[in-house]
Amino acid sequence: MYPPGMPKLWNETIDGHRRAVRDAVLETTVALVTEHGLASVTMSQIAKEAGIGRATLYKYFPDVPSILLAWHDRHVAAHLAALAGARDRAHGPSERLGAILRGYAHITHRRPQDGEIAAFVHRDPHVTRAQRQLHDLVREAVAEAAAAGAVRDDVAPGELADYCLHALSAAGAMPSEAAVRRLVDVTLSGLRPAP
Amino acid sequence: MYPPGMPKLWNETIDGHRRAVRDAVLETTVALVTEHGLASVTMSQIAKEAGIGRATLYKYFPDVPSILLAWHDRHVAAHLAALAGARDRAHGPSERLGAILRGYAHITHRRPQDGEIAAFVHRDPHVTRAQRQLHDLVREAVAEAAAAGAVRDDVAPGELADYCLHALSAAGAMPSEAAVRRLVDVTLSGLRPAP
Repeated sequence: MYPPGMPKLWNETIDGHRRAVRDAVLETTVALVTEHGLASVTMSQIAKEAGIGRATLYKYFPDVPSILLAWHDRHVAAHLAALAGARDRAHGPSERLGAILRGYAHITHRRPQDGEIAAFVHRDPHVTRAQRQLHDLVREAVAEAAAAGAVRDDVAPGELADYCLHALSAAGAMPSEAAVRRLVDVTLSGLRPAP
Repeated sequence: MYPPGMPKLWNETIDGHRRAVRDAVLETTVALVTEHGLASVTMSQIAKEAGIGRATLYKYFPDVPSILLAWHDRHVAAHLAALAGARDRAHGPSERLGAILRGYAHITHRRPQDGEIAAFVHRDPHVTRAQRQLHDLVREAVAEAAAAGAVRDDVAPGELADYCLHALSAAGAMPSEAAVRRLVDVTLSGLRPAP
């Protein structure tokens, strides 16, 4: 992984620096777009606000949209990791499914629903890939719970995952955490095997 | 309702003419926007394609966005009327709720999900009003079914309506009518009183 003769620490320092610049660019861009709108933010402005040269910025990103997508990717990766973590801390198939759905509902609840950045990134195929990863996570947990008899097995796990993710998207407009918990509860009821 | 001395038939003819012009404008605009994109369609083009004068067009609509919103309004009104009709033909609270949810899922399934027109009209407050009417329709049916003991009463009907509408929006990406029926079935299971 490391070029011969180059100490590991040196590489870590460079990586750390790169990550710090990248993070500064992402945060600066989101702040600028939120304040001024997507159409009016330029690469020069971003470089200036992030405290780096314009040429340096172009070594990291070719344009403003690619910065927003990178920012969104970072968010989604963090959310998927959090959901997988919640799943892995739970014991038993039902509990693992519940942990994922609760986690997803709360992420959706806290996420700003409108705004130009959300509208922009959700048009991109990158987001489709992230949604597929999320869908896979839920589908696998549904399949595991169905195999254990805790979830209906007369509907395919993939369809049930679609149902869950759409139903829980209602969390975005819910007025309180208590309402979100009720939504998760109702959504889980829909998965129960027919009596 | 009619100015004195003016025969009713005459008014109906004028109304019929106005409606025909209006409908032609709506259909022409949607066809042009679908083909060329929202940004490149002008009022002059619409007038020309609809076979009316530009001045006449401006008596009906001030700009292209207002035409698209009128087109969407007409669609939504037709859908709401269809859902209310399906409800009124059903017997009993559970059946009325089921008829509305099935109807909504099938409308969502057949509706084109993407496209510039959908993205445009869904940003408008008009659509919020239509969504509120839809929400009211579902909420009332949920409340009626809850009062009859067919739906859980530990969660407010408004929250259950949110859950239903979001869950059923999954119908948009479902591959078949059979999958849509299963989605409605799963969504209805979530509403059942706890055993």
